[in-house]
Amino acid sequence: MASEEWRVLSRLELLDGSPWLRVWAETVELPDGRVIDGFYSLDSPDYAVVFATAGEQVVVQRGYKHGPRRVALHLPSGHLEPGEEPLDAAKRELREETGYEAEGWTPLGTFSSDGNRGAGRAYLFRADGARKVAEPASDDLEETETLLLTQHELLVALGRGEVAVLSSAATIALAASPPTS
Amino acid sequence: MASEEWRVLSRLELLDGSPWLRVWAETVELPDGRVIDGFYSLDSPDYAVVFATAGEQVVVQRGYKHGPRRVALHLPSGHLEPGEEPLDAAKRELREETGYEAEGWTPLGTFSSDGNRGAGRAYLFRADGARKVAEPASDDLEETETLLLTQHELLVALGRGEVAVLSSAATIALAASPPTS
Repeated sequence: MASEEWRVLSRLELLDGSPWLRVWAETVELPDGRVIDGFYSLDSPDYAVVFATAGEQVVVQRGYKHGPRRVALHLPSGHLEPGEEPLDAAKRELREETGYEAEGWTPLGTFSSDGNRGAGRAYLFRADGARKVAEPASDDLEETETLLLTQHELLVALGRGEVAVLSSAATIALAASPPTS
Repeated sequence: MASEEWRVLSRLELLDGSPWLRVWAETVELPDGRVIDGFYSLDSPDYAVVFATAGEQVVVQRGYKHGPRRVALHLPSGHLEPGEEPLDAAKRELREETGYEAEGWTPLGTFSSDGNRGAGRAYLFRADGARKVAEPASDDLEETETLLLTQHELLVALGRGEVAVLSSAATIALAASPPTS
């Protein structure tokens, strides 16, 4: 309902780290008329995450992530390029990071990374019928290895804390328990 | 493996919005010796998210979220207070936001919100045997209503795009498909 929405009265840019990060302080008006100053809002590129299956196995990556500051399992993912469709970004990232292409693509949902501040949307996909067509050709800074795990092995690893990043955990769990339509 | 980790050589604070947001530009050394300047790192408070069941139903909230800029379904959640244990924060947020208390608490995992930049950890919980013991007493800025949905209804809503925030989607999916141990 429109009456529940907040109105942004003004926004002050605090940091311009385009295209990776912009930080704003917003002045917002709540539905009850209260005005709140200094509500942080973050702009970051949207990104895609892919749960790709090759037969009974899932295409998984293992490597260092600087957010959690440790080596962990994660799914192929990456930022959308300017003007790029989320599905195209998902296909490109899967191919660049792992060398795999997939046949059947299913969206698992689109979500804000941060409920209060935005910080980019996560486009989550399931991709079935993946097969390796090339060597990985990623320009990511991290050294990453590609593994094939069964869904059961991946869920065990998730339960043991071997997945460190929220978007990968969400995508694995959504793929294992697909939203009902 | 330690050799895969990045070494932070220095960090420059770009924005101090304590306690809600601090932004750093880090100079990091990669395992291959390359030095990268200006890698953004975000400090934000950790937070807890709760999938609470009352019999066959799940305690869900509906309200405006400023991150996705729309009214959506989400789970009770909130920031840890300084020094607060994640489980204590989860119990407090459930009680404050919905007036419910629960009997059996199960951790569903701890994840970095942002794989590259950190931005706070999400502590996800399942809580069973919830019952209403009080009226909500939240000081959140959002007007929020509490609903009881069956798990099936909640998964249908998730599939329809009625959940807008990644941490709620992850917690719902992990609770519906619990990590295998």
